[in-house]
Amino acid sequence: MSKDKDVLLEFSMSPFDKGESLSAYVSRSLEIIDKSGIDYKLNPMGTVLEGSFEEVMKVVADCFNKMKSDCNRITLSIKMDYRKGATGRLKKKIQSIENKLGKELNK
Amino acid sequence: MSKDKDVLLEFSMSPFDKGESLSAYVSRSLEIIDKSGIDYKLNPMGTVLEGSFEEVMKVVADCFNKMKSDCNRITLSIKMDYRKGATGRLKKKIQSIENKLGKELNK
Amino acid sequence: MSKDKDVLLEFSMSPFDKGESLSAYVSRSLEIIDKSGIDYKLNPMGTVLEGSFEEVMKVVADCFNKMKSDCNRITLSIKMDYRKGATGRLKKKIQSIENKLGKELNK
Amino acid sequence: MSKDKDVLLEFSMSPFDKGESLSAYVSRSLEIIDKSGIDYKLNPMGTVLEGSFEEVMKVVADCFNKMKSDCNRITLSIKMDYRKGATGRLKKKIQSIENKLGKELNK
Repeated sequence: MSKDKDVLLEFSMSPFDKGESLSAYVSRSLEIIDKSGIDYKLNPMGTVLEGSFEEVMKVVADCFNKMKSDCNRITLSIKMDYRKGATGRLKKKIQSIENKLGKELNK
Repeated sequence: MSKDKDVLLEFSMSPFDKGESLSAYVSRSLEIIDKSGIDYKLNPMGTVLEGSFEEVMKVVADCFNKMKSDCNRITLSIKMDYRKGATGRLKKKIQSIENKLGKELNK
Repeated sequence: MSKDKDVLLEFSMSPFDKGESLSAYVSRSLEIIDKSGIDYKLNPMGTVLEGSFEEVMKVVADCFNKMKSDCNRITLSIKMDYRKGATGRLKKKIQSIENKLGKELNK
Repeated sequence: MSKDKDVLLEFSMSPFDKGESLSAYVSRSLEIIDKSGIDYKLNPMGTVLEGSFEEVMKVVADCFNKMKSDCNRITLSIKMDYRKGATGRLKKKIQSIENKLGKELNK
């Protein structure tokens, strides 16, 4: 991993042609993410990656290429937040809000 | 709150006209969410709400109306996952993936 | 329709449990949108609505309630751009970019 | 350009630290897109690219690297639709809906 951690990228990716239960396919992506060594946090609607633009996009591409191997139609949604010189935001963004409110939030 | 919890909705909302530091505005939304009594989980890229379609959309509208009171330009992004008859997915979706992989993930 | 047109909202909504061909379900949403009288523009990845926050959210809710009537799992993604006092942006946003570049773009 | 056109990718990218008028920055991205030779369509909320996964992601990266050169905080949102063997969907997806409804829609 590079030292550049100025990008937070959340993504979710699912096939349309495998019926309504998606966890088998999401699990394969999480296996790839977890093994990649990238900093990440899973939430109920997606996974947030932290790293350089190239690093996080590489992980998304790896997950896509895996899913593409046996799925005919795939939807991918990505939301990215770049901040120059930022680091550690996987934790700091939530802490900053809790500090401002002076209380702990559900997370 | 209704007993209907078939919707998970993740959203993030930020002003464009207040400079690059956004946590003051995000905090106000979290205050509204936290006080609403809705089930939620904050992550570094958004907040996931669980409830009926009407309930979660009401919370988003409340946050929007607050932000609109002193912001000139606002971006809002929403991703929703409806599943008929589902409940407790704020926890269950992650557990289901961990069970499939047989290990704990970062969350 | 109200005179308030300060919101542009793009959305796309699809079932996961109906296989990879989605146009039958998307068509039903477009029928609802077209009949609603709201200003809109369809593109290959979604539909952009223009109106007040309440108006555009009402159309999205109508489409959701229709889809929910016979689909078990639905994904909905929304991106909204609010600008105070704005109007006519369904056309103006593209024109503004073309004016800046001094040429016509594909649209 | 490759012959692979199985991916439609819509994206929008904006700085948070440049005030509420964003068209100067969006125009620079459109200049890059237009010159890249990729098939695309601009709409009021984003730009839809058509090509292979690698091609469309390359254009997004080029736009990001340009914006990063003088913006401190950037939000990027992407929605992608992959369909095996598909081609020409920049036009066909809309036509398919119009055919189903038997009328022309606003586009």
